[in-house]
Amino acid sequence: MERDKINILVTFDKNYIGPFKTMLKSLVINNPGESFVIWLIHSSVSEEDLNGLIEYCSLNGAGFNPVKVERSLFENAPVSKQYPQEMYYRLLAPVILPHGLKKALYIDPDILVVNKVRPVWDIELDGRVFAAASHTGIFDMAKGINKVRLGTEHDYFNTGVMIIDLEKAREIVKADDVFGCVREHSSELILPDQDVFNYLYGQYTFKIDDDIWNYDSRYYSLYLIRSNGRHNMDWIMQNTVFLHFCGKRKPWNSSHSGRFTALYKHYMNLAQKLK
Amino acid sequence: MERDKINILVTFDKNYIGPFKTMLKSLVINNPGESFVIWLIHSSVSEEDLNGLIEYCSLNGAGFNPVKVERSLFENAPVSKQYPQEMYYRLLAPVILPHGLKKALYIDPDILVVNKVRPVWDIELDGRVFAAASHTGIFDMAKGINKVRLGTEHDYFNTGVMIIDLEKAREIVKADDVFGCVREHSSELILPDQDVFNYLYGQYTFKIDDDIWNYDSRYYSLYLIRSNGRHNMDWIMQNTVFLHFCGKRKPWNSSHSGRFTALYKHYMNLAQKLK
Repeated sequence: MERDKINILVTFDKNYIGPFKTMLKSLVINNPGESFVIWLIHSSVSEEDLNGLIEYCSLNGAGFNPVKVERSLFENAPVSKQYPQEMYYRLLAPVILPHGLKKALYIDPDILVVNKVRPVWDIELDGRVFAAASHTGIFDMAKGINKVRLGTEHDYFNTGVMIIDLEKAREIVKADDVFGCVREHSSELILPDQDVFNYLYGQYTFKIDDDIWNYDSRYYSLYLIRSNGRHNMDWIMQNTVFLHFCGKRKPWNSSHSGRFTALYKHYMNLAQKLK
Repeated sequence: MERDKINILVTFDKNYIGPFKTMLKSLVINNPGESFVIWLIHSSVSEEDLNGLIEYCSLNGAGFNPVKVERSLFENAPVSKQYPQEMYYRLLAPVILPHGLKKALYIDPDILVVNKVRPVWDIELDGRVFAAASHTGIFDMAKGINKVRLGTEHDYFNTGVMIIDLEKAREIVKADDVFGCVREHSSELILPDQDVFNYLYGQYTFKIDDDIWNYDSRYYSLYLIRSNGRHNMDWIMQNTVFLHFCGKRKPWNSSHSGRFTALYKHYMNLAQKLK
């Protein structure tokens, strides 16, 4: 049976073109035999940059479809310096993407893909609408705080990697709910888009393992301890699919220094040196 | 103009098949557009393992030629537990390899190839016969010791990566010289094959930059200091071609822990998971 194409959703502005290219390079090298179509939701990437991205994706065997958001969608949105319009794109992807699309895999541009994504693409959502991992087993503190803060009963999900069942999501995701949530809770939101996602859609989210699907690269020792020493570097390189460079210190900066820095910069170099 | 095929010389026994596969995977991924032919000089690799290697190389787009050494070549060799027959293979490659071959690039199996090898393959040897890098700028102590110990005037070369002009080498490399050198100096030899190479052929060797062509992965901080901070991780990933995991602690062991461990284990995983 022929494998279906995998729709990768990204949302970024021109500052993240470099990291996106690195992410895509790692995705392609580590997923031979798969076909990818990249969907970029954006409002400000220039024609020139979009043409560069089309060419880059094509050289890497991937399709590229930029989707420019219509301003009219944001007429009623609370938009400010703190809450830029861009923060809504991932949340509203089911509304913004072409309605023929059935499923998308959202990936943050500060991620390296170092193993096969097919298992999460084919995952059974067990009646839910999204799949995402939670980092709250790593920060147990945050678990309680976020539940109290957001008044939710489920885990607090990290939205850096998400499977979105677009067909089902179109039934529940409404732009006005999202805008209303931001208006009502603006004083409590710390990571606005992720908080809103958790508040409104956490209950529809199927939890996947963060050691595999959203590994926070800052906490090697914590993952190692939590797994009783099982998830060492061999295990990670064999099993982890999404290596997420969370936090303020980014691996494309020259000052970054950690266990995964060389691996990241190697892919950065591969992305910059196309044949 | 069509590029010539690059002859890669390796010499290993069955314990190094895994590391060799990792090295080859990194070589192929980071050198798109090149054709490689692997020459393995050996005496004990089984038919079954050789067939596995042929298939592995073929799946990676490389040719594979095993060359089994003839026992008769070693009739006069001093061979002991300390000086196994295998230690001579790299030194005697010009004698052992088919005489039609003009040039070879020797690579140790504890090396990752993370950038393009074409510049060193095409290097002008300036009348010399070999090209190799020296680590003596990193261990200044060793420089004096090795010169006194071996009574040589030139740098002490690391033989983990070498360009060999086989045509010229056939004129100067004689098995009896090598055996004689081992007999005469057996009490002074610390790294027998490398010492003998330096003693007999160091004067014929063109020195290449170890930061690029034979980077000792244990000494990140020393390379950084020596380059006045220039050769940081960005520089290395952009410029270094051969990342050499020198010393007793090897990156394929689960206890290995360093700046380049994740990168090595990632390629190890890629090598193990062919499509």
